[in-house]
Amino acid sequence: MKKVITLGEVMMRLSPPAHQRFLQATYLELEFGGSEANVGAALANWGTQALHLSAFPSHELGQAAIASLRRMGINTEFCYSLAGRLGTYFLEKGALHRSSKIIYDREGSSFSKLSIENVDWEKLLEGADWLHWSGISPAISQSAADLTRKAVQEANKRGIKVSGDLNYRSNLWQYGKQVHEIMPEIMENTHLMIAGKRDFEQCLNKSFQDFKEASTFAFQQFKQLKWISHTNRNTYSASHNTISARLFTLSESFRSKSYDLNPIIDRVGTGDAYAAGLIYGLLHLSPQEAIDFAMASGALKHSVPGDQLLCSLEEVQEVMSGKSGKIKR
Amino acid sequence: MKKVITLGEVMMRLSPPAHQRFLQATYLELEFGGSEANVGAALANWGTQALHLSAFPSHELGQAAIASLRRMGINTEFCYSLAGRLGTYFLEKGALHRSSKIIYDREGSSFSKLSIENVDWEKLLEGADWLHWSGISPAISQSAADLTRKAVQEANKRGIKVSGDLNYRSNLWQYGKQVHEIMPEIMENTHLMIAGKRDFEQCLNKSFQDFKEASTFAFQQFKQLKWISHTNRNTYSASHNTISARLFTLSESFRSKSYDLNPIIDRVGTGDAYAAGLIYGLLHLSPQEAIDFAMASGALKHSVPGDQLLCSLEEVQEVMSGKSGKIKR
Amino acid sequence: MKKVITLGEVMMRLSPPAHQRFLQATYLELEFGGSEANVGAALANWGTQALHLSAFPSHELGQAAIASLRRMGINTEFCYSLAGRLGTYFLEKGALHRSSKIIYDREGSSFSKLSIENVDWEKLLEGADWLHWSGISPAISQSAADLTRKAVQEANKRGIKVSGDLNYRSNLWQYGKQVHEIMPEIMENTHLMIAGKRDFEQCLNKSFQDFKEASTFAFQQFKQLKWISHTNRNTYSASHNTISARLFTLSESFRSKSYDLNPIIDRVGTGDAYAAGLIYGLLHLSPQEAIDFAMASGALKHSVPGDQLLCSLEEVQEVMSGKSGKIKR
Amino acid sequence: MKKVITLGEVMMRLSPPAHQRFLQATYLELEFGGSEANVGAALANWGTQALHLSAFPSHELGQAAIASLRRMGINTEFCYSLAGRLGTYFLEKGALHRSSKIIYDREGSSFSKLSIENVDWEKLLEGADWLHWSGISPAISQSAADLTRKAVQEANKRGIKVSGDLNYRSNLWQYGKQVHEIMPEIMENTHLMIAGKRDFEQCLNKSFQDFKEASTFAFQQFKQLKWISHTNRNTYSASHNTISARLFTLSESFRSKSYDLNPIIDRVGTGDAYAAGLIYGLLHLSPQEAIDFAMASGALKHSVPGDQLLCSLEEVQEVMSGKSGKIKR
Amino acid sequence: MKKVITLGEVMMRLSPPAHQRFLQATYLELEFGGSEANVGAALANWGTQALHLSAFPSHELGQAAIASLRRMGINTEFCYSLAGRLGTYFLEKGALHRSSKIIYDREGSSFSKLSIENVDWEKLLEGADWLHWSGISPAISQSAADLTRKAVQEANKRGIKVSGDLNYRSNLWQYGKQVHEIMPEIMENTHLMIAGKRDFEQCLNKSFQDFKEASTFAFQQFKQLKWISHTNRNTYSASHNTISARLFTLSESFRSKSYDLNPIIDRVGTGDAYAAGLIYGLLHLSPQEAIDFAMASGALKHSVPGDQLLCSLEEVQEVMSGKSGKIKR
Amino acid sequence: MKKVITLGEVMMRLSPPAHQRFLQATYLELEFGGSEANVGAALANWGTQALHLSAFPSHELGQAAIASLRRMGINTEFCYSLAGRLGTYFLEKGALHRSSKIIYDREGSSFSKLSIENVDWEKLLEGADWLHWSGISPAISQSAADLTRKAVQEANKRGIKVSGDLNYRSNLWQYGKQVHEIMPEIMENTHLMIAGKRDFEQCLNKSFQDFKEASTFAFQQFKQLKWISHTNRNTYSASHNTISARLFTLSESFRSKSYDLNPIIDRVGTGDAYAAGLIYGLLHLSPQEAIDFAMASGALKHSVPGDQLLCSLEEVQEVMSGKSGKIKR
Repeated sequence: MKKVITLGEVMMRLSPPAHQRFLQATYLELEFGGSEANVGAALANWGTQALHLSAFPSHELGQAAIASLRRMGINTEFCYSLAGRLGTYFLEKGALHRSSKIIYDREGSSFSKLSIENVDWEKLLEGADWLHWSGISPAISQSAADLTRKAVQEANKRGIKVSGDLNYRSNLWQYGKQVHEIMPEIMENTHLMIAGKRDFEQCLNKSFQDFKEASTFAFQQFKQLKWISHTNRNTYSASHNTISARLFTLSESFRSKSYDLNPIIDRVGTGDAYAAGLIYGLLHLSPQEAIDFAMASGALKHSVPGDQLLCSLEEVQEVMSGKSGKIKR
Repeated sequence: MKKVITLGEVMMRLSPPAHQRFLQATYLELEFGGSEANVGAALANWGTQALHLSAFPSHELGQAAIASLRRMGINTEFCYSLAGRLGTYFLEKGALHRSSKIIYDREGSSFSKLSIENVDWEKLLEGADWLHWSGISPAISQSAADLTRKAVQEANKRGIKVSGDLNYRSNLWQYGKQVHEIMPEIMENTHLMIAGKRDFEQCLNKSFQDFKEASTFAFQQFKQLKWISHTNRNTYSASHNTISARLFTLSESFRSKSYDLNPIIDRVGTGDAYAAGLIYGLLHLSPQEAIDFAMASGALKHSVPGDQLLCSLEEVQEVMSGKSGKIKR
Repeated sequence: MKKVITLGEVMMRLSPPAHQRFLQATYLELEFGGSEANVGAALANWGTQALHLSAFPSHELGQAAIASLRRMGINTEFCYSLAGRLGTYFLEKGALHRSSKIIYDREGSSFSKLSIENVDWEKLLEGADWLHWSGISPAISQSAADLTRKAVQEANKRGIKVSGDLNYRSNLWQYGKQVHEIMPEIMENTHLMIAGKRDFEQCLNKSFQDFKEASTFAFQQFKQLKWISHTNRNTYSASHNTISARLFTLSESFRSKSYDLNPIIDRVGTGDAYAAGLIYGLLHLSPQEAIDFAMASGALKHSVPGDQLLCSLEEVQEVMSGKSGKIKR
Repeated sequence: MKKVITLGEVMMRLSPPAHQRFLQATYLELEFGGSEANVGAALANWGTQALHLSAFPSHELGQAAIASLRRMGINTEFCYSLAGRLGTYFLEKGALHRSSKIIYDREGSSFSKLSIENVDWEKLLEGADWLHWSGISPAISQSAADLTRKAVQEANKRGIKVSGDLNYRSNLWQYGKQVHEIMPEIMENTHLMIAGKRDFEQCLNKSFQDFKEASTFAFQQFKQLKWISHTNRNTYSASHNTISARLFTLSESFRSKSYDLNPIIDRVGTGDAYAAGLIYGLLHLSPQEAIDFAMASGALKHSVPGDQLLCSLEEVQEVMSGKSGKIKR
Repeated sequence: MKKVITLGEVMMRLSPPAHQRFLQATYLELEFGGSEANVGAALANWGTQALHLSAFPSHELGQAAIASLRRMGINTEFCYSLAGRLGTYFLEKGALHRSSKIIYDREGSSFSKLSIENVDWEKLLEGADWLHWSGISPAISQSAADLTRKAVQEANKRGIKVSGDLNYRSNLWQYGKQVHEIMPEIMENTHLMIAGKRDFEQCLNKSFQDFKEASTFAFQQFKQLKWISHTNRNTYSASHNTISARLFTLSESFRSKSYDLNPIIDRVGTGDAYAAGLIYGLLHLSPQEAIDFAMASGALKHSVPGDQLLCSLEEVQEVMSGKSGKIKR
Repeated sequence: MKKVITLGEVMMRLSPPAHQRFLQATYLELEFGGSEANVGAALANWGTQALHLSAFPSHELGQAAIASLRRMGINTEFCYSLAGRLGTYFLEKGALHRSSKIIYDREGSSFSKLSIENVDWEKLLEGADWLHWSGISPAISQSAADLTRKAVQEANKRGIKVSGDLNYRSNLWQYGKQVHEIMPEIMENTHLMIAGKRDFEQCLNKSFQDFKEASTFAFQQFKQLKWISHTNRNTYSASHNTISARLFTLSESFRSKSYDLNPIIDRVGTGDAYAAGLIYGLLHLSPQEAIDFAMASGALKHSVPGDQLLCSLEEVQEVMSGKSGKIKR
C-alpha cells in the first residue's frame, strides 16, 4: 500500500443547484474541495494511503471540512486548527454557450497562515512514497510558498517522489511576490510536472515557441525532472468538450486516447482526477498505462458531481478498456 | 441610458422539477414570466431602463409577481392592481423525443381587464425610446387589444420606436374577434416586426407563397415598417435544436451564424431573449451586429432556467465572439 | 377495451438524485417498479385494462407499492398481502463514461413466496386477452417458477395470448434450479418471445451460431410461438445510446427505425416500455406498425424518469410520426 | 364492507414549503383535495368502499387529480372528464400568531359544470349505505346545487343514509342564489348534519339564541334528521389549538374528550377527518364510541400533512385509547 | 407616504435547512439580510418609502443582494458597488435546549469601506422623515463609524428624526477604537434609542444600577433624546420564549402585552421587526399604540423564516387585536 | 484521551422528510445509525477515541455506512466487509397524537454473520478503557450473541470497564434462543447496566415487584456490577415528552433534573446519547455530575436530526448549566 502526501488549501464550495444562475439561487449546495486534497481523495478510493497537510479554522465549518476529508478516507492527522477564515469558492455551473463561473473568496484563510513551524516534518513524511503540490499554494501567501518549498525539500531528502501541478492563476499572487521569484526553487525538487506552455512561461519568466521547446528547456533546467504531462482540451461549449493527454520523459512520449464529453456533469476537479491517475499510474504501471489510466480518471470525473473523483479502481479500468456505459447489475 | 416600455400579461409559471411529467410531480417550481416582460428583464440586465405596463390581482401571488419584476430591475410603477385572476401556465419540460407541454390557465386575468382609462399615457411614455408589444396581448381580450392599439398610437405620436412580436397563437383569440380584424391597425404603428410567413398570413388574412413575398407585402403595406426579423429553428428533438436568425430592411438582409444547442436547459423565453437582443442592437449597434447580438442572446437563453435571460452584456458579447464555454475564474 | 394480465415482483426503487453517486447521497428518490408491472402501467395509459398479479408485505411500504400501481391505473385486486420483505433495488444513474449501477436487495420477498394456491385462477383470467411474464419471476424461487408455469398453462387453456420477456439474468437463479430446467416448459405456452441469442442459449442450454439460428430453432421447437422480437442497442456511453428493433414471424421480418438518444434521462424500464408497445401493437395494429409503435414506446421511455412509461397513445404516435420535439401548447 | 358515496369538487392544492410565505416561495407543494373526497379517502383507509362523484378537465393535471384519488383507494368510475378548469387553492400555512391563508382560484371549474344528466344515478347508488355532501357544492353553481339536491333525493328513495357538512362560506354563493333559497331542500333529505349555530342561521335565514335553539328547531323542521354534530375549537394561535366535539340526537347528547394540539402540522381537512370518523362511527359503533372515534380522527389529522387523514383504523383507535405517542417498532 | 432612510451592511445569510447542524448540511439556504435593511423591508411592506444606504461588491452575489432589497420594495439607488467582499453570516437554527449559532465572516466587506465621500448626502436625505442606524455599523470600521456619525448629523440639520438600535456586540469593535469613544457623538443626534442597561453602560463607559438609572442619565445627557425603548425576553429554550416591550419618554412609560412563542420559526430579525414597528408607530400612532404595534411586529416575526418581517399592515394589526390564528380564506 | 470500544450493527436509516407518512413519501432521507455506534459518535465529539466493531457488505452502500462513521470521527479499522445485506430501518417521524413508526428490515445482515474468528481481539482491545454493548446484538443471531459474550469476557480479562444497554426488544430474538438463555452470561461481565424493571425481568426470566427489587437482585447476582441507570420518560404525545434519569450504586442513588421537550425534533438515539453521556461521566466526573451530564446529553439529542448526538462537550455543559437557548454569536 503506497502512501501519498498532499498539501494545500481546502475550501468550502457553494454552488447553485442544477443550472441555476447565482441570481436565481435560494440555496447553495455545500461541499468541500481543493486541488491537492482532491488528488488525495481519488487516490484513497484506489487503496492508496492518502494524508493531507492543511489548516482550518476551529469553528463548525472548519470541522465539517475536515470531516469531509475523513469521510473520503484521507488521513487528517496533519489538518491543523489555526486562526483565520475558511476559504470559499462560489461555483455557477454553465451549460451550452454559457460559461461556468467561479467567484473566489479565500483571502485570510487559515491555510494561508500555516507555517513551516506548525508541522512535524519527520512524522508527516514517515514512510511516504509520493508528495503532491500545486501552483495554487505558493500563490496564496509567503507562508504557504515557504511551506511548499520546505515540503518538497524535505521529501527529496528522504527519496520521496514529488509531483506538482503548476496551474498558474493570474488572479492569485497578490502577496507581493511574482510567480517566477518563487516557483523555480520548488520545481527543482519536483519529479513530475503537470504543465502546459503557458505555465512554464509564467513560472520561468521566459517565452517559448511551443510546448516542445518549453519541455525541453525544463528537462535541461531541472535535473530531478523525470516526467512532464498535460491534457489537451477542446471546448465546444460548457456542455461539450473533448480531452486527451500526453506524457513525456526526456526521451519518450505517450499519448492517451481522446474522450468525447457531452453533456458534462461537473467540470471542476477533472485536472485533479487526472493528476491522481498519473500519480497512481507512475507508482504502479508502465508509462503508456499510466497516461491511459490518468486520462480515464480525468474523463470519468466529468460525470461525477463535486470536486472529487469518487470512483473505484475497477471503474477507472472499465473506462480505460472502453467498455463502460451499460447498466451494471 | 435608453428607456424601453413593454406591455403585456405576466403569468405564474408552474413547472415540475427536472424532467418529471405532470403526473409525477409532488411540487411545482414557481416563477413568473410573460413574453413582453421577459424582453424587459433582458434589457434591464444590459443597463437599459425597462418599464412594464400590466395589471395584477391584489393578493399575495399578484404581489409576488410584481416583486419578481422589481427584483429583475424592471420599473413596476405601471403595474396596476385590478380585479381578476393571476394568469397561470403549467410547463412540463420535454427531453429527447418527448415534447415540452404547456397547459394555459389564463382566462379572466387582471391583465385581460386592464383598459385604456387605467393608464396615464403621458407619464408612462415620458422619455421613452422604444415600446414593445406582442401578438399575445390583442388575442386575450377586447380590452387588451384596445390597450395595445392605444399604446402604439401614443408611442408614434411621440416619435418612440415600436417593435411587435406577431406571435400568432390559434388557441387564443376567444373573445369574438379574429386576428385580422385587430392586428393591421396595430402593425401600422410598428417599426420592427418579428414574424414569419404564417404570422403575416394570419394577421393579414392573406396567403403568401413564401416569406419573401410576405415581407415585401408588409414593407409596402406598412409605411412605418423598417425592419422584419425572424429565427429559423431545426428541432431534432426536445433536447437538440439548431437556430439562426435573419434581419431584413426594405433593401438589405443580414444573417446570424447558427447555434447548435444540446442539451437544451430551458426552451421557453428564447424568442423573447432574441427580441430583447434585437431591440438592444437596433438602439446601439449596426444591423449586422444587431442580428448577431440578438441571436447570441436567444441562443444563450437556452442555457438559463426560467422565462428570462439573466445575463450581462459581457456574457452575450462573449457568446457573439464564439469564445464562451471555459470556466471563468 | 382489451384486458392484459401481468405477473411479477414489484420492488421499491431507491435512487440518489440527479447524477449523485451512492457515496454522496443524503436522500434517495423513492419509486416502485418491476418489469412486468411496468408493462401493465404503459398499457393502462393507452386505455388497456391492466391487472397485475403479485404479493406484498402488509406494512406501510407494501401498501404504498400497491397504491402506486393503483395510481397508474392498474387493477390491484390480485395483489396479495403475504409475509416477507418488500424487494428493493438501489439505482445509481450513470452519465458519460460512468455506467449506471444497480444493487439488488430482493431476497425473501413476499412475491417469492406467492404460490399457485394463493390465486383464484378462474377469476384472475376471466375476460383476459393477453398474459405477460418475464424471465425474472421463474429465477426468483421455485414458488414463483411454479406460479409462472401455472399462469401460462391456464392462459393457454382459455385461448389467451401469452408473451414472455426471457431476460436471462445470471445473478438470479439462486434457489437450486438452473434456467434450462425451468424455462422450456414456460416457453411452450408462449406466443411472443422477447429474446436475443444469449437468452435462447441460456434458456435452452444450447449454443447457436447467430440469432437467426436461435430463432429458427425456437419456431421449430415451440409450436405455439408466433413472434420473436428484440432490440439492438449501441452503447456509446451511459448518456448516449442508439436503439432499433426487429420483429420476426416464421416467415417474415420487420424492422423499426433507429433512435438516437442523448442525453438519456432514465434507461431503466425502456425494455418494458418496448414490450408494452409490442403487446399493444400486436393486439391492435399490423406487424410493421406494431414494431414501429413498440420502438417509439421504448425510445420515448428514455426521456421519462422512473420505471414506467407514463405517456399517452397520442404521445407515442407523435414519436412514431417523427414529429415530436416542439413545445405543445 | 360498507359503501359510501361522496360528491364534490377536488382541487389542486398548491402550498409553499414549511412555513414560507407566498412571497418567499420558489416552489409550491402540489397535492389534491376537496372536503368530500377527503372524507372518502379517510373511509377508504378504514376498509370502507368509497366512491367519489365529480368532474375534471381532461388535461394532465385533471388526470393527476383522478390518479391521486385512485391511489388513496377511492373508486373513480364516476369522475367525469368535462370542459372547464381544475379548481385551485393556494395555502400558506401559518405559525404562532400568523394565521394560515387560503387564496381560492376555483371559478369555472369542470365540477361547477357537472349536471344531473351526466350521471347514471342508478349505477352510482347501487349497493350504497351512505351518501355525504357538503355546503360547498351548492354554493358553487346552480348546476352543482341541482346535482346535490338530486343526489340526496335519489339516496333517500333507496334508503341510503345521508350526511351533510353545512359548512357555510360567505365568499362562495356568487351565482345569483342565496344560501337559504337552496339549502333547506337539501337538508330535508339529510340524516346527519354537521353544523354550528351560524350554519343553521345562514342556511335557514333565521336567528337563534344559541346552538341549542338552532338544533331543536332543526330536529323539528327536518323529519329525517337523526343526528347533529359539531366541534368546538379554541384557537390560541395558528400553532396551538384545543378541540372537542359533541353529538346530539333528538333526545340525547354525547361529548368527546378534548385534545391539546401544539404544534399543529396541517390544519386543513381536520373537519373532513372528523366527518369521516362520524360516518364510520354511526355505521359501526355506538353514539358515544362514534363521537370518540370521530374526534380522535379529527385530532389525528392535525399531525398529517396534506388534505387527507391517511391513517389506519388501528391508529385512530390508539388515539381514542389515549395510548399513542411512543415509537412503534 | 413617509420616507425612511436606513444605513448598514447587508450580508449573505447561509443556513442549514430545518434543524440540521452545520456538520450535517449538504446545502445552505441563501438569503440576504442586515439589521437596518431588515427595518427598511418591514416598513416598505407597510407602505413606507424605504431607502437603504450601503455598499456591495460588483460580482453576481453582490448584485443578488441588491436585487433582494429591490424585491422587498426598498429603493436601492444608494447601494454602491465598491471593492471588497460580501459579508456573510452562517446561521444554525437551534431547537429545544440547543442554542442557535451564528458564525460571522464579514471582515473586509465592501460596506466596511464605504466612506462619507461616496455619498451624495443632499440627494439621499431629500424629503426624508426618519433615519435609522444600529450600533453594528460604527463597530465595523472607522469608515463606517464616520459614515454613521455624518448621517445622523446631516439628518439633524434637516429636521429628520433619527433612531438608533444601540445593539452592543463585543466581538465586533476590532478596528482599534472602543465603543465609548465613538458612540456618544452619534447618540447625541438620535431621538429614539432602542437599548437596555448593558448597551448604555458599554456605549457610555459607565455603570448603572438598573435600567431606570441608565435611561434617566441618557435623557439628561442627550438633549435630543425623546424616546427609549427595549424588549424583555424570557428564554425557556431555543424553541420557547416570551417577549414584551416598554417605551419611555422623559415623563411617561408604556408597556405592551406579552407574547408566548412556541415553537419559534425564526428568531433572527425579531428585534429589527420591533424597531420597524416602533418607527412606524411613532410616525403614525399614539405612544401606547406605537409600542403595541411594535411588539406585535416583533412577535409576528418569530413566525416568518428569513431576516425580514414580510407582513402587511393588516396582519400586524390583526395580531395587535389578539384575533389572529384562524385560517383566513 | 480515553479509548472506548463499541460493538453492534449499523443500519441504513431511511425516513420520509418532515412529518410525511410513508404513503406520501417520494424520497427518503438517508442516514446511517445503530445504537452502539451512536454512543461512539457522541463520545468522539467529546474528544474520546472511539472504535467500532462491526461488519458491512462490500458494496457501495456498505462503504457509505463505514464512511459515515469515519466522518463522525470513529475509528473504522475493525469494520469488516462480509457477505450479507446492509440492515435497514424505515423511520416515520410522528407528531402530536400520531406515534413514530419503525419498520425493521435487518434480517441476513453482514453484522449478523460476524463471528469471533473474524476479530483480532488483542489488537482491538489494546489500550481500551471501556467497552459498550447493547441488548440488540445478542438478539440478532447466535453469532452476534457469541461475539458479544466473547467481547465482554476479553474486556474483563484486561480490566476494561464494560457497559450494557439491556434494551429488550421482543420482536427480535428470532434465531431460536430466548433472551434469558443468553443474557446472564453477558451481564456477568458488565459494570454498568442501563435497564428498567422490564429489562431485568426479561433478561433474568424472573418477576420483580418494582425497579428497586430488580436492581437489588442484580447487584447481588452480578458481582462486577457497579452502576445501574435508567431514564423516566413521560410521553404526552409524539411531540411532547418530559424526561429525567437516575443512577444507582449498591449504596447510593443520584437523580438528574427533568427536561421538558416540545416539540421534539428527533426522538431516535436519545437513549444512546444518554448512554454516551453516562460513559463519559463515569470516566471523568463524579456520579452526580455523571448523571447530570448524561441526561443533558440525552435531552439535547431530542433537538438533533438523525441518530447521533453531534454536539460538543461545551454544548452539553451549557445545557447542564441551564443557560442554553439564546443565540450564540
